[in-house]
Amino acid sequence: MYDLIIIGAGPAGLTAGLYAGRYRLNTLIIEKILVGGQLLLSPTIENFPGFPGGIQTEELILRFKRQVDEVGLNIETADVLEINNSESASHTVKTENKIFQTKTIIVATGAHWKRLGVAGEERLIGKGVSYCATCDGPLFKNKEVAVVGGGDKAIEEAIFLSAYARKINLIHRRQGFRAAEILLEKAKANPKINFILDSRVEEILGLNRVEAVKIKNVLTGALSEIPSQGIFIFIGIKPNTEFLKNQLEIDETGFIITDEQMQTSSRGIFACGDCRKKSLYQVINACGEGAVAAHSAHAYLLNK
Amino acid sequence: MYDLIIIGAGPAGLTAGLYAGRYRLNTLIIEKILVGGQLLLSPTIENFPGFPGGIQTEELILRFKRQVDEVGLNIETADVLEINNSESASHTVKTENKIFQTKTIIVATGAHWKRLGVAGEERLIGKGVSYCATCDGPLFKNKEVAVVGGGDKAIEEAIFLSAYARKINLIHRRQGFRAAEILLEKAKANPKINFILDSRVEEILGLNRVEAVKIKNVLTGALSEIPSQGIFIFIGIKPNTEFLKNQLEIDETGFIITDEQMQTSSRGIFACGDCRKKSLYQVINACGEGAVAAHSAHAYLLNK
Repeated sequence: MYDLIIIGAGPAGLTAGLYAGRYRLNTLIIEKILVGGQLLLSPTIENFPGFPGGIQTEELILRFKRQVDEVGLNIETADVLEINNSESASHTVKTENKIFQTKTIIVATGAHWKRLGVAGEERLIGKGVSYCATCDGPLFKNKEVAVVGGGDKAIEEAIFLSAYARKINLIHRRQGFRAAEILLEKAKANPKINFILDSRVEEILGLNRVEAVKIKNVLTGALSEIPSQGIFIFIGIKPNTEFLKNQLEIDETGFIITDEQMQTSSRGIFACGDCRKKSLYQVINACGEGAVAAHSAHAYLLNK
Repeated sequence: MYDLIIIGAGPAGLTAGLYAGRYRLNTLIIEKILVGGQLLLSPTIENFPGFPGGIQTEELILRFKRQVDEVGLNIETADVLEINNSESASHTVKTENKIFQTKTIIVATGAHWKRLGVAGEERLIGKGVSYCATCDGPLFKNKEVAVVGGGDKAIEEAIFLSAYARKINLIHRRQGFRAAEILLEKAKANPKINFILDSRVEEILGLNRVEAVKIKNVLTGALSEIPSQGIFIFIGIKPNTEFLKNQLEIDETGFIITDEQMQTSSRGIFACGDCRKKSLYQVINACGEGAVAAHSAHAYLLNK
């Protein structure tokens, strides 16, 4: 019987682990794929306090992980298929091979990039359709590529891709951007980046590889095709919460509803980071929430 | 007319500055005393994610500050005497010498250590009564000192003082501790630290310097005196919010009430960090809140 199981080892889960370890809770972290989570899909991070000039995400994750090691926590690699909160004093966490008993749970499973949902997208994933410029950018040396989206991530990745691609068409459905002004300035000053605004992607074209992107101007309705050997899609995130199967209250997109102490609708189960419904999805507040979630789990155990 | 004035340059204010700078808001940071705030009253911090083995607080603050420099923000040293939110489109921030106009404000003024409120305390401040072991610890080499409190800070500082003092009497009013178990283990394993539990300080004794502490056992009512050349008091924090003069909703202790987006009771005014009412007062979540507050200020300005 564990005091706490943390599901997910991204920034939120690792910080929850650091705090839980310092509270000396008997804690297990379960990670599905890779310690670090979706943060590793970006090459560097500039806006994590403590690292002037930015830091490579791999190095930052290594540092988080080392602190979790320092407090003696184990990280198990497994896919959590289900959690069960039917009993009030304990919860179960099921993976492919094991069933764990635990007094509390912190869900820190993060999110993944949303699909556009247009023709050609699913068929051409890995054949020019990508959700990770860091992973696939170097494959597009001297090519013309499209980036779709208007948030920080889309702009950051367009800039990153300019180190490889010949031309980047940044397609965004509005004139206004959610991205930070400092990023927009950099993108606008970059001669390789061409802004195509008020436009949405209608279809991704190509037989065995992406060859072009069909776009529609949302103001005029005009359709056009732009040549593209690749298309990178950053139109928002979708939380990794399918495994919860409605055991916890979620919103229409699947984000977990919590109060400010990270308490979910089920007592003893907490959530933090990008799987949570909130206003800002950044590494620094994911970490802050991880600390708060561990504190709340500790307080819950003390008061039981 | 500024877009944003941030009051306070501790971890919360500096992170708010980093984000505001990246949003390219015309931002001024005003700090009363020293960039870094009360964090500098601790020598090192072990639980800030990204720094395995811990980091000196001075070094961490320098790193935060450098990132604020990178985005081109100025920090002005001044004591904010008053803010005024009478007009809907702009607010004023008054210091001794100037009046600033700004569209939004982030209050990040932090907190300070509470007084015990017993006889002898005020009279002997700086004469053995201290709220900062980092500042004053080295003065107590081979002396016998008392530490009062049961949270992380009290235990951390007792351990820190053991590098100097001959004996540390840790006085706490209960048996149970709020402090993290990992800290308690270290303190209990330290031969210089003596736990005096279920006891409260009744008076601080001494003519021109602290000589002894009078304590009362809360279970038996028995009074006793323990020799002490110094007494370090860490019984909780009090927010630095007097200057607000009830312009914002606060709780009975003075902590500012906000929603999860850091919005206070007054539109366009946000608060983050230790001056805010919340469940956990740590550097990592102060930083997370700073990022959220800047994001909320940016969103507010966009939607105005």
